[in-house]
Amino acid sequence: MASFRTVKGFRDLFPQECALRNHIAETWRAVARRYGFIEYEAPLIESTDLYKKKSGDEITAQLFCFEDKGGRDISLRPEVTPSLARMAAARQRDFKKPLKWFEMGSCFRYEEPQEGRTREFIQFNADILGDASPGADAELIALAVDVMLEFGLRKDDFLIRLSNREIWNQYLKEQGISEEHSAAFLQIVDKIERAKPEETAAKLEAIGLSLDHVRDFMRATDENHPAFAALRADLTARGLWEHVKIDASIVRGLAYYTGTVFEVFDLKHGLRAVAGGGRYDKLCALISDGAADMPAAGFAMGDVVLGILLSKTPSAQCRITDYLNAQHGVDAYVVIADEAQRAPALAAVQALRRAGARVDFSMAAQKVGKQFQAAENARARLALVFGAEYPQVIVKDLVSREQGEVPAGSLAAHVLAALQEPLRGPLIA
Amino acid sequence: MASFRTVKGFRDLFPQECALRNHIAETWRAVARRYGFIEYEAPLIESTDLYKKKSGDEITAQLFCFEDKGGRDISLRPEVTPSLARMAAARQRDFKKPLKWFEMGSCFRYEEPQEGRTREFIQFNADILGDASPGADAELIALAVDVMLEFGLRKDDFLIRLSNREIWNQYLKEQGISEEHSAAFLQIVDKIERAKPEETAAKLEAIGLSLDHVRDFMRATDENHPAFAALRADLTARGLWEHVKIDASIVRGLAYYTGTVFEVFDLKHGLRAVAGGGRYDKLCALISDGAADMPAAGFAMGDVVLGILLSKTPSAQCRITDYLNAQHGVDAYVVIADEAQRAPALAAVQALRRAGARVDFSMAAQKVGKQFQAAENARARLALVFGAEYPQVIVKDLVSREQGEVPAGSLAAHVLAALQEPLRGPLIA
Repeated sequence: MASFRTVKGFRDLFPQECALRNHIAETWRAVARRYGFIEYEAPLIESTDLYKKKSGDEITAQLFCFEDKGGRDISLRPEVTPSLARMAAARQRDFKKPLKWFEMGSCFRYEEPQEGRTREFIQFNADILGDASPGADAELIALAVDVMLEFGLRKDDFLIRLSNREIWNQYLKEQGISEEHSAAFLQIVDKIERAKPEETAAKLEAIGLSLDHVRDFMRATDENHPAFAALRADLTARGLWEHVKIDASIVRGLAYYTGTVFEVFDLKHGLRAVAGGGRYDKLCALISDGAADMPAAGFAMGDVVLGILLSKTPSAQCRITDYLNAQHGVDAYVVIADEAQRAPALAAVQALRRAGARVDFSMAAQKVGKQFQAAENARARLALVFGAEYPQVIVKDLVSREQGEVPAGSLAAHVLAALQEPLRGPLIA
Repeated sequence: MASFRTVKGFRDLFPQECALRNHIAETWRAVARRYGFIEYEAPLIESTDLYKKKSGDEITAQLFCFEDKGGRDISLRPEVTPSLARMAAARQRDFKKPLKWFEMGSCFRYEEPQEGRTREFIQFNADILGDASPGADAELIALAVDVMLEFGLRKDDFLIRLSNREIWNQYLKEQGISEEHSAAFLQIVDKIERAKPEETAAKLEAIGLSLDHVRDFMRATDENHPAFAALRADLTARGLWEHVKIDASIVRGLAYYTGTVFEVFDLKHGLRAVAGGGRYDKLCALISDGAADMPAAGFAMGDVVLGILLSKTPSAQCRITDYLNAQHGVDAYVVIADEAQRAPALAAVQALRRAGARVDFSMAAQKVGKQFQAAENARARLALVFGAEYPQVIVKDLVSREQGEVPAGSLAAHVLAALQEPLRGPLIA
């Protein structure tokens, strides 16, 4: 029994899980860069006030917040958008608008752990600041779609559910409901698919609305609504509108959204949302006390639900396996069959690594059979045997099983050339 | 005036600083993989007990520790080694020994911020578990040296200061000093170069030792000491011993080191240590209550002092500039000279990105001159102009200033071919 464990809700990433995280992060980064987004990073800790005042009740109830030894009220970040708004406001004059920025890093929420939900998770954030156009919203949705496709997911694996908060603001206005009920109303709509109908109906009645009327309005809201016209034209031109479905029940829980809102859902496994975002035109001004009044939009995608979806989807799973095979393992394993040859063997290890090859060997004296076993475990393509034949080195291809002798002086060049040769078959099936 | 700021000791990584962090992290990862190390990651939060009991007083005084909403005493990790020992102990049967594992991520220490010291920093950890040989110590020191060289640092820029705690244990034994004074003695040695001589002398006298005698012993301890024989032979064979200097004042502050200890220092700027580590054979057993009794050694390198050193060293700075130029900017910028052509322009953007090119464009309608300015700002190689000539697209090389017309249907193939052509001169001087 190990006496220490992970804290509830936190994860160890052993090599296999870490490779999945790296595959996810490298895919996010690669697609974001193709879209011209530039990477930044915010601190993992911010003043608690930054969240308390700006993100709404749902987030503050889930904060990991505490007082540091200097008496500061600080929090582990539950999301990155408030930090981004703070950063952009602080140095808005140093950067040309629009900013297209992305970020990847840990976020923390004190929620009950369950499938798809941990208390620490990695989040990808992509945001466009300083552009109020529907084209910016489209660029973000296109990025979300292309990220999903890059993972090997297909059209029938996922869907963008799209809405616009302005539609509901207009609806409330037409129904003569005062603005003060707007936040409460959006909370009701947010939960309309999960809550009991009679409870939803009661809550709606309290602010003067009927469930049937709200439902009829939701059903009538489709892609022909004028709020979606520009977005639809843009995404249709990109060939991506087929990934989008209008769904007026999408409002996003966070208080700061103002216009377009969307979420990414899987279509086969009933998982929680994979990603979500939208337009938040007033947040920068709010956080900078009006100093930086920039329109903004963005989305966030976590690694936990996404990781489950990828592992359940064969066309995505095979890319994870490819990544694992490419990242774990070495090109060559140096076998020291005679300890008297350890010095030239070490020189060869050093020369090969300097040349860019991935090389391993037994750091302590070890039986030859065990060293070959270690070479197999490390998925080495070549074994380089330093033994009685030295200064000849035996080069053994562990896949083709061919072998030959090479003078130590030309070993590095020989090995680098051999590693360029295509394999007869897959290294790992 | 922005109303929110970073918490004291925490950093915003704007794109430039983030690129430096990425350059550092990618270099760490690339060299570690060449050495056959495999990546893992530990949680950013652990039980406070894991640190209180295992890491010694110096670390616990600097902990960011607090109680979570479930009443758990938890801490932001100040280092990763205790987590690694916990993880390795928990699943020791699942992995072949020795484990060669590396990790990169944030650590937190509540210290007074100053040059080279922030309260959140990124740390690279490389460790070898399950191998007690000096060869494992040598492998780690070689990795540390090759990481420094890979950054573009040279022999006269840095040095490994090497010692072994056993040398002092033996010294205390020979001087008849009881083991209970060992920890206090090592603390004195750790500070011997910075503390006032009279204070050091007084502290040593209190445990029955003289400063002169200790100093004489330190001066007499050199590379001929038998504690370094195997390590010296190994690193000499690799051609790396020239980067090492024996320095008996190196003991490492942390309580858990047992044998070889070393630090990496710059030689020109008098900065704090860039990296440090050593052997900690008893930590796994301690953390697992004896369940996993594995010898272990490792080192950690932070990004803060390293980043300062790189920025002060021209041969390293030019690699950072190369990285920045390669990562920030796009291959092509699509100029929409006529809004009537936005749809085919969007289709071209999508096709080029799908093919792997980095492409940007103006998401909102914008004057042509502003779009070309944005193309320059984004360091685009090519501008692709969709205007009156459509379905011909004007392709303009923003470096050579050459331009021509290409039919929209063959634009993607043409652009991808053009991007393969070598540049006449550097894109960014």
